[in-house]
Amino acid sequence: MQFKVSIVGGGNFGTAIAKLLAENVLNLKSYSPEITMWLYEEYINEIPLTQIINTTHINTKYLPDIHLPTNIRATSDLKELNDSDILIFVIPHQFVKNIINQIKGTLKKGVISVSLIKGVIYSNGDIGLISKYISNTLNIPCGVLMGANIAIEVAKGYISEGTLSGVNDKEGIIIRNLFNSNIYRVSIVDDLWGVELCGTLKNVVSLGYGICKGMGCGLNTCCAVLRNGLVEICNFYKLLGKGKDCTLFESCGISDLMVSCLAGRNFKAGEFIGKKISLEEIKEKMGGQQLQGPDTAKEIYEYLKGKGKENEFPLFTTVYRVCFENELPDAIYCCISPKSISDQ
Amino acid sequence: MQFKVSIVGGGNFGTAIAKLLAENVLNLKSYSPEITMWLYEEYINEIPLTQIINTTHINTKYLPDIHLPTNIRATSDLKELNDSDILIFVIPHQFVKNIINQIKGTLKKGVISVSLIKGVIYSNGDIGLISKYISNTLNIPCGVLMGANIAIEVAKGYISEGTLSGVNDKEGIIIRNLFNSNIYRVSIVDDLWGVELCGTLKNVVSLGYGICKGMGCGLNTCCAVLRNGLVEICNFYKLLGKGKDCTLFESCGISDLMVSCLAGRNFKAGEFIGKKISLEEIKEKMGGQQLQGPDTAKEIYEYLKGKGKENEFPLFTTVYRVCFENELPDAIYCCISPKSISDQ
Repeated sequence: MQFKVSIVGGGNFGTAIAKLLAENVLNLKSYSPEITMWLYEEYINEIPLTQIINTTHINTKYLPDIHLPTNIRATSDLKELNDSDILIFVIPHQFVKNIINQIKGTLKKGVISVSLIKGVIYSNGDIGLISKYISNTLNIPCGVLMGANIAIEVAKGYISEGTLSGVNDKEGIIIRNLFNSNIYRVSIVDDLWGVELCGTLKNVVSLGYGICKGMGCGLNTCCAVLRNGLVEICNFYKLLGKGKDCTLFESCGISDLMVSCLAGRNFKAGEFIGKKISLEEIKEKMGGQQLQGPDTAKEIYEYLKGKGKENEFPLFTTVYRVCFENELPDAIYCCISPKSISDQ
Repeated sequence: MQFKVSIVGGGNFGTAIAKLLAENVLNLKSYSPEITMWLYEEYINEIPLTQIINTTHINTKYLPDIHLPTNIRATSDLKELNDSDILIFVIPHQFVKNIINQIKGTLKKGVISVSLIKGVIYSNGDIGLISKYISNTLNIPCGVLMGANIAIEVAKGYISEGTLSGVNDKEGIIIRNLFNSNIYRVSIVDDLWGVELCGTLKNVVSLGYGICKGMGCGLNTCCAVLRNGLVEICNFYKLLGKGKDCTLFESCGISDLMVSCLAGRNFKAGEFIGKKISLEEIKEKMGGQQLQGPDTAKEIYEYLKGKGKENEFPLFTTVYRVCFENELPDAIYCCISPKSISDQ
């Protein structure tokens, strides 16, 4: 038996991952040699994007410079996921509920999954993980894979690392072997919450880093913001009673935080915010690409406010206030009062 | 009584720190309002640099764009340090022994000191701290202050952080109050070894980061090197039985590592090394400025080799071999096999 692998999401990162896996499975006996990539249909000059991908082997909308292997088959039909053994979720977190509900009850028995989605689910005053939501709703195991993975660099075959968690030993081997290669190096850690929170909270920190950069700050100040952000992530772990400090030393931690601050979408949005451009204008400038940071900042702020802890997280709180409450960008400096994590 | 403050070193960073302290002391009653800055005399068009600084209030050689406060007095006479109460050491570590031996026995009773010097002393198979060397040789207390401090940014008044250690409560207050301001924010931690090792080892990691960048790698790979470097610093702590993981979350840790990788001299040297330019040529290209990284890489390698542990530190070892043993730059990728720190 061979595992049939499907990717749910055909954006920039989903397509880069499809390329990685399509190349990997050709060298692996345990996986079916074709990768299915589901994407929400869009039309480019009236031609469906799935058709363009399947004929030109280029995702002209989201990863235009990269030739894809011919063993990727794009589809916009969720029913085609029905016979998958492994599902890789790479969709913006705003679309999770809708898509998960559509595929609920349609999957094969024994399917396993992994989420590459950044974000959390905030409801009724509590923070929930997207992987848990997927797992509970579909009644399938769902791990997470996060790391310092700029999509275009993964697509170009630059060496990258990823951190996998939330899988048992058997699932861990199946998923790691699928992703692992000379150009993508996977480590497994036992800290689902820590890994997924890293991937989520880094978007708030990278907004803050971008705001500083946008105001014209130098590296000393920007990196002070990043550091204080890392400490707030760590303190957020403690507030939730979830996540391990050592996870911050993994690719999903400090590395992903760093690439996000240096080159991520939220960093770029932060730069505009630092120049006092409104969120609405920024979304337009960024060509309608989904931006996770502001929504995450809002959810985290609401959670913190519910606990009366917003003042203990000055960076997270200030990023929210600058984005949504007309706070001036330079309020961000308040987070740079030296903070330390406890010595344990 | 007012503390008389002297800075030993008038290079790029020494001069930036002189400016910071000269501005601070004007608002503080406990410190004498003049800052003495000792520097090794050099001549610019036959005029002594100390004379240029004292008349133009610009260090035309090392910090040419910055106007210095008039309460900095430059001198090249080490005897002028005799009546100092606080000594700030900011010299390249190659010159430490010579200068410390010259001032030995000449200092006032009760003097306290702080070292901003990056590097370690390797002798007889053991690693020693520069602050300890100063402290033991001069028989005075010597703390350390390290952080993400690009000199020109400190000089321009951009907000920066620093981490102070190796001081008792009384010395801590005296030194922190001297440095602390709205633009320079000092935290004190109890981990002299951790802080000083961070400041030293980051130069090896930033060489590695630069080597990657020089070979044309993207951010995913460069940040993977940085992360694996951070883990090696952490493992080096464990090998020595000194240093605390939590110190890596301070400004002297991750922040300084990051600014060094993005903009430091060793990063720039690494970039040249990645393009297969020899160390000799690089030193010429860099205008004869002191480069700590290669020497530190060598000392660390010799220490590791003495312990038979060089293979457990593939980044440190490869940086040394690329610098001194004609190893090809792309050997650096060997360090990117996922490594984790222990979960304690």
